[in-house]
Amino acid sequence: MAKGFQSLPGFRDFRPEDCAIRNYLFTHFREVARRYGFVEYETPLLESTELYLKKTGGELGSQLFRFEDQGGRDITLRPEVTASLGRLAASSQRDYPKPMRWFEIGQCFRYEKPQKGRTREFYQFNVDLLGEEDSAADAEIIALSIELMRNLGFRQGDFIIRLSDRSYWHNFGEKHQLSPDQIAELLQIVDKLERESPEKISQKLQALNLSFQQLQEAIQNPESLGDHLDHVLKNLEARGMRDDVEVDLSIVRGLAYYNGIVFEVFDAQKSLRAIAGGGRYDTLISALTDGSVDLPASGFAIGDVVIRHLIEETPHASEQMYQTLATQSHFDVFLILADQEQQTAALDLATRLRQAGISVGYSLSSAKFNKQFKQAEQAKAKLAIVIGSEYPTLSVKTLATRTEEIISDSDNIAQSISALLSQ
Amino acid sequence: MAKGFQSLPGFRDFRPEDCAIRNYLFTHFREVARRYGFVEYETPLLESTELYLKKTGGELGSQLFRFEDQGGRDITLRPEVTASLGRLAASSQRDYPKPMRWFEIGQCFRYEKPQKGRTREFYQFNVDLLGEEDSAADAEIIALSIELMRNLGFRQGDFIIRLSDRSYWHNFGEKHQLSPDQIAELLQIVDKLERESPEKISQKLQALNLSFQQLQEAIQNPESLGDHLDHVLKNLEARGMRDDVEVDLSIVRGLAYYNGIVFEVFDAQKSLRAIAGGGRYDTLISALTDGSVDLPASGFAIGDVVIRHLIEETPHASEQMYQTLATQSHFDVFLILADQEQQTAALDLATRLRQAGISVGYSLSSAKFNKQFKQAEQAKAKLAIVIGSEYPTLSVKTLATRTEEIISDSDNIAQSISALLSQ
Repeated sequence: MAKGFQSLPGFRDFRPEDCAIRNYLFTHFREVARRYGFVEYETPLLESTELYLKKTGGELGSQLFRFEDQGGRDITLRPEVTASLGRLAASSQRDYPKPMRWFEIGQCFRYEKPQKGRTREFYQFNVDLLGEEDSAADAEIIALSIELMRNLGFRQGDFIIRLSDRSYWHNFGEKHQLSPDQIAELLQIVDKLERESPEKISQKLQALNLSFQQLQEAIQNPESLGDHLDHVLKNLEARGMRDDVEVDLSIVRGLAYYNGIVFEVFDAQKSLRAIAGGGRYDTLISALTDGSVDLPASGFAIGDVVIRHLIEETPHASEQMYQTLATQSHFDVFLILADQEQQTAALDLATRLRQAGISVGYSLSSAKFNKQFKQAEQAKAKLAIVIGSEYPTLSVKTLATRTEEIISDSDNIAQSISALLSQ
Repeated sequence: MAKGFQSLPGFRDFRPEDCAIRNYLFTHFREVARRYGFVEYETPLLESTELYLKKTGGELGSQLFRFEDQGGRDITLRPEVTASLGRLAASSQRDYPKPMRWFEIGQCFRYEKPQKGRTREFYQFNVDLLGEEDSAADAEIIALSIELMRNLGFRQGDFIIRLSDRSYWHNFGEKHQLSPDQIAELLQIVDKLERESPEKISQKLQALNLSFQQLQEAIQNPESLGDHLDHVLKNLEARGMRDDVEVDLSIVRGLAYYNGIVFEVFDAQKSLRAIAGGGRYDTLISALTDGSVDLPASGFAIGDVVIRHLIEETPHASEQMYQTLATQSHFDVFLILADQEQQTAALDLATRLRQAGISVGYSLSSAKFNKQFKQAEQAKAKLAIVIGSEYPTLSVKTLATRTEEIISDSDNIAQSISALLSQ
């Protein structure tokens, strides 16, 4: 490490090889979104702090990158995108037919303790279906998340969708005469089920006149899953995706604004944090607009950190990724100047090849023939074109096979070179 | 506009139609970079404030989005990327053969008064060639910027590169016995030439024992342009790009760290701010690392705001953009359910088509046949596939021509549909 400045703790530099992996993920996010007919939007990285406090009820409050700008505004680097999406959708929804299929890829920021799998910035892929209350929309969102996992090279059994419905707990609460506040408390208890001791849970349940056993019974032997879960399961069955999903009523998602179907994507061993998660949030947009816009919504989000980790840990997914990246060489063609007198011809040729979409490199300073050849190999070029005193006659060497062809520079040289590149 | 939250002043929402334009720019940035063999990197949006103060000598100081994080660090949302690039290149350059051809696309933030063409956030495309001191590197960077303009649909005469060399002014200063500090002052005067009154300029020049006439003479009738400018011009001539460039010694770029060739891209009428600019900064990386890493460098940056504006103002460039965007329909295929009993078949078909890379939509809630057809048209689908009681027999309608084909669902349906789509 050189002397001098460091990046901030929890913030990542993407060297070219890391950026290629980031872009591999983005390409797959965009491709799967396209197949499902979603269009991309983006919102600002900075918003009024109030937007997040209002939306999340302050749950993310202690993790906000929050400050006052030069105009005295209380502003925050976005910790997530759904609040901004709600703001944008509310103000623009009149201009679009419903349902709106929208997606976004961008960075979010949370002041957390940096550790493996937890950074202070991360990219998130957000997919949302706005203006459709039918549970077919929830199924569509879940199917997209499954398709994404398959597209990234994961196979059945590598991952599992844990599927649930918050309204199950609403019904359960009402059956046990709980008030709305008590139901909210119950959801908090269920959310922390895997992280708290049975004693602590029992204690909290006692305040609601419920027992740990009743809760476990409700999770393991539900009387009825309800219409929404039934529909979603049947819908996914028709798509050949039923085996990627398990009903798990202990999943309720932390954030208060979910109100129906919720789900999380886990690695099969459930050894990592949730890879992705989402659900239905029909009242958020109404809440953000003081009731003036009512737009039912269902969506999900996936971050880049955990999914990259799982790809690296899963041999066939990791092989697919690295094979894709290996085909992206820096240069299609490297020009080698055997005669410095031909510099003008070389620059002219480089320009014409580039204009035809071919990537071209060459030595920027005058260098010996052998050194230029070495540069061509270091740059992982596919072809080396030698330009010497015989110009316009050119020698084209395929670096992998060391075979050579003699061609003449002419109007259709780009075509000849493209043909050699696609061999 | 609905009641509720607004975005912050100077920050942009990208609705799908705006995001498509942003992505059109990004696609062209990446494509031209690829042809020139540049690889993408990314650095954090937040850095220690000190990094920017050290690099720019505080010139951007008053425009910084600067704050203290929860750990008491003085941090800043990046106003530009070159400082971070310098930091990253210094710490990683040992791992890469030279020269390094690196590019980046990302957001920057400046607290400026929001007005037409000036926002508080903007995307920037940064292209840098590191580790090559030959002026062939400067020519390569300038050629890339010209190629980008052409690629975006601009023609000769739509734009002009104003090319200069800071060392010309160093030589001029030394000839007039100016101290290094006085030369720095002279560069500041030249930089503001188009923005300040002749009186004010004369006054400032007097302190350096120079006259306004001497300065104008030096700009308009240079004795010699020097080797670097001569080389760059000859190099661009060989590429057929000489006519896109004019020597203009009044261009020196504001930032203190440029030390050689500098250039700016303008619209032909010079009615807008500079569209792009760049130059050679051989000492920056050394300065950021207290002299431990010495890496000559040349680069340029272009923002998304001014270039988008110029595209919209230039009929052939704007036509190219909107024609490209018009071909991106939301859905290739819209499935229409003529018989609700066939829902399972429809979901299965949607899944298979999507897995083959075709984008597929359908009505998420049960709707009448005509309404589904209307949805297909609103979604700008190319084909409507009607699934009725005759399934597996399907009716495929091309919406633009209203022609119909009858095909049967089978293992190679995706192939048949792809064939229809590419007609």
